[in-house]
Amino acid sequence: MAFSERVSRLKSSLIREILAAAQRPEVMSFAGGLPAEAMLPKVEWAEMPLSLGQYGMSEGEPALREALAAEARALGLACEASQVLVVSGSQQTLDLAAKLYIDRGTEILLEAPTYLAALQIFQLFGADCLTVPLEADGPDLTQLRQRLKLHRPAFIYLIPTFQNPSAVRYSEARREAVAALLDEFGVTLIEDEPYRELTFDGGSAKPIAGRLKKSSWIYTGTVSKTLLPGLRVGYLIASPDLFPHLLKLKQSADLHTNRIGQWQALQWIGSEKYQQHLCELRDFYRQRRDGFQAALETHFADLADWNVPQGGLFFWLTLKQPLDTRTLLNTALANDVAFMPGEPFFPEPDNNPGHLRLNFSHIDPARLDEGLKRLAAVVRQAQAAEAA
Amino acid sequence: MAFSERVSRLKSSLIREILAAAQRPEVMSFAGGLPAEAMLPKVEWAEMPLSLGQYGMSEGEPALREALAAEARALGLACEASQVLVVSGSQQTLDLAAKLYIDRGTEILLEAPTYLAALQIFQLFGADCLTVPLEADGPDLTQLRQRLKLHRPAFIYLIPTFQNPSAVRYSEARREAVAALLDEFGVTLIEDEPYRELTFDGGSAKPIAGRLKKSSWIYTGTVSKTLLPGLRVGYLIASPDLFPHLLKLKQSADLHTNRIGQWQALQWIGSEKYQQHLCELRDFYRQRRDGFQAALETHFADLADWNVPQGGLFFWLTLKQPLDTRTLLNTALANDVAFMPGEPFFPEPDNNPGHLRLNFSHIDPARLDEGLKRLAAVVRQAQAAEAA
Repeated sequence: MAFSERVSRLKSSLIREILAAAQRPEVMSFAGGLPAEAMLPKVEWAEMPLSLGQYGMSEGEPALREALAAEARALGLACEASQVLVVSGSQQTLDLAAKLYIDRGTEILLEAPTYLAALQIFQLFGADCLTVPLEADGPDLTQLRQRLKLHRPAFIYLIPTFQNPSAVRYSEARREAVAALLDEFGVTLIEDEPYRELTFDGGSAKPIAGRLKKSSWIYTGTVSKTLLPGLRVGYLIASPDLFPHLLKLKQSADLHTNRIGQWQALQWIGSEKYQQHLCELRDFYRQRRDGFQAALETHFADLADWNVPQGGLFFWLTLKQPLDTRTLLNTALANDVAFMPGEPFFPEPDNNPGHLRLNFSHIDPARLDEGLKRLAAVVRQAQAAEAA
Repeated sequence: MAFSERVSRLKSSLIREILAAAQRPEVMSFAGGLPAEAMLPKVEWAEMPLSLGQYGMSEGEPALREALAAEARALGLACEASQVLVVSGSQQTLDLAAKLYIDRGTEILLEAPTYLAALQIFQLFGADCLTVPLEADGPDLTQLRQRLKLHRPAFIYLIPTFQNPSAVRYSEARREAVAALLDEFGVTLIEDEPYRELTFDGGSAKPIAGRLKKSSWIYTGTVSKTLLPGLRVGYLIASPDLFPHLLKLKQSADLHTNRIGQWQALQWIGSEKYQQHLCELRDFYRQRRDGFQAALETHFADLADWNVPQGGLFFWLTLKQPLDTRTLLNTALANDVAFMPGEPFFPEPDNNPGHLRLNFSHIDPARLDEGLKRLAAVVRQAQAAEAA
């Protein structure tokens, strides 16, 4: 039996394995990126027309495309509904982008660290992953210029707002500078914004795609973090030169996105009740973030450094004494604590030890302190063993 | 801007263009493969648990996987729920299979004709498409043996029950012979069965995958033809050696299939009400098939040959005087009739002129006669013009 060449790069996903191990109810999990179940909004289905049971358009439901385009324009992205493609969760945007751009050996440019599942599918298609380091308010501009000058990457993949895993939010200045550099070198932007609406200080900023003057772009978002991930409804908005290709790739991937989820999304996007739900969600997560920060101060102040996230779902810890955090996993799970090691968020995991990604949205606050206490003990123990 | 090498093979889908042109209400369309809207069952959503809004497992909902495995075992496919992967419509199975097997130049084996969208995605990934001709009860066995002997295709893709487009149903003997040949040459089977339940004479037959003794296999089905296509819920069942790879590919494609559609499918699969719905659907389509056959006899008896389909959604006409049926499209559309030319169902369209695929499930019976009359006139006119 001969598989394709790409199957040799088909990695087992560490996060899948951790989530499976974390299924035991006694496990205190900081591993996943799950929305809090208490905050899933109550949705109604009674009004949904039966006709949505029929096949639909590959582009998505026209009314939903209009609503998404209007939202995007309000953010500062010049676009029409004809540029909106509804996808089966924004993960699918990454699949379509990989198909559009990546052959074996194609150079692409990513933030370091970057979203694990993006790395997974780009590498599956054979990408050669270049990186630019993230600083507190965006990518290192000197290194970005250097990469763009020396290489001509097929695209750059950025998560400028409350990045997963690092929680970094690009400043206005960095957004502007990045856009100018991409225009200067004519490099396509893929801008991934699942966390934009989960802002805790009210801050927002125009997408980088909206600042481009020449380069092609794909902007992608989802209702998974703010409404219901189980709907599998995301979207991409693309510059007109890219849209027709992405549409054909969508059609060949799964014909079209499920229409029942699209209908439900349309009941919320742009509505008063969605705005209210988002306010409640931000309040809820801000409180969880604050509780988490307090518990981290108690248990991790001597062990790690971190920035307090202004949005999103994660704390990103950098150990003062780096070690390969993957080696902590088994002990943590044996102590009924799950977390996400930082190494797999880098194309070269072994060269980037010493980070932990901790989700703060999903853990029961009553167990938070105990969970972080145990996790800190696991780190301490490993560092002591290494020093011995 | 540099796209991937595969984008050079990203074809515009003729069927998409025809369906778009056929949107005008005055057009009598035989082009699509749409279920009749009158037969979309009424579905209830009130009981759906809110917890299905959360992220789900890449494998699919456990209860649905169990139900699908039980159905498959009843057909004669030895399998467990652990081999079932719920996908976003069975088109996604083709995407996952393409990723698993196809590099540029990979030889695969297909029926001629075969399913258009399968051809589209296999060619997108760079497959070299070999074919075996279909006869009235299955593939030409001499040619099948020859292909398997001379080539070692990565897989064979077959639609043995009411094939789209040809409506062919393999006989028991051909199924057995095909299984024996695949075992002899160790070739993987991908068996696509969207139309199995749409049988008009009650006949059924064990899947070929259930007859294999050694070869690897993927069996794929969907609820799109029997319940609601808008749910985008299909499934694949794979031999245990293939399953882990397909699961990882599913995860990287879209994380998991929408859970609301999975929940709805579970309300039907294996239930008494589903059986009753299927009986009504078969009666309804059988009547449409009979009406279509009568109208074809009136208008096409001198123009074409065909077999009366015993299931599925299509008549496959072979013109007595072949011509490239793609050249008929504009005239047909100008006469408010849409149909699907046969050429694109072959990897080498230009070498296979003279077939029309006509859908009989979706047209309003009151307009059927007028539609076929006009279509016959278009054919006659073209043949006269060619003879002149």
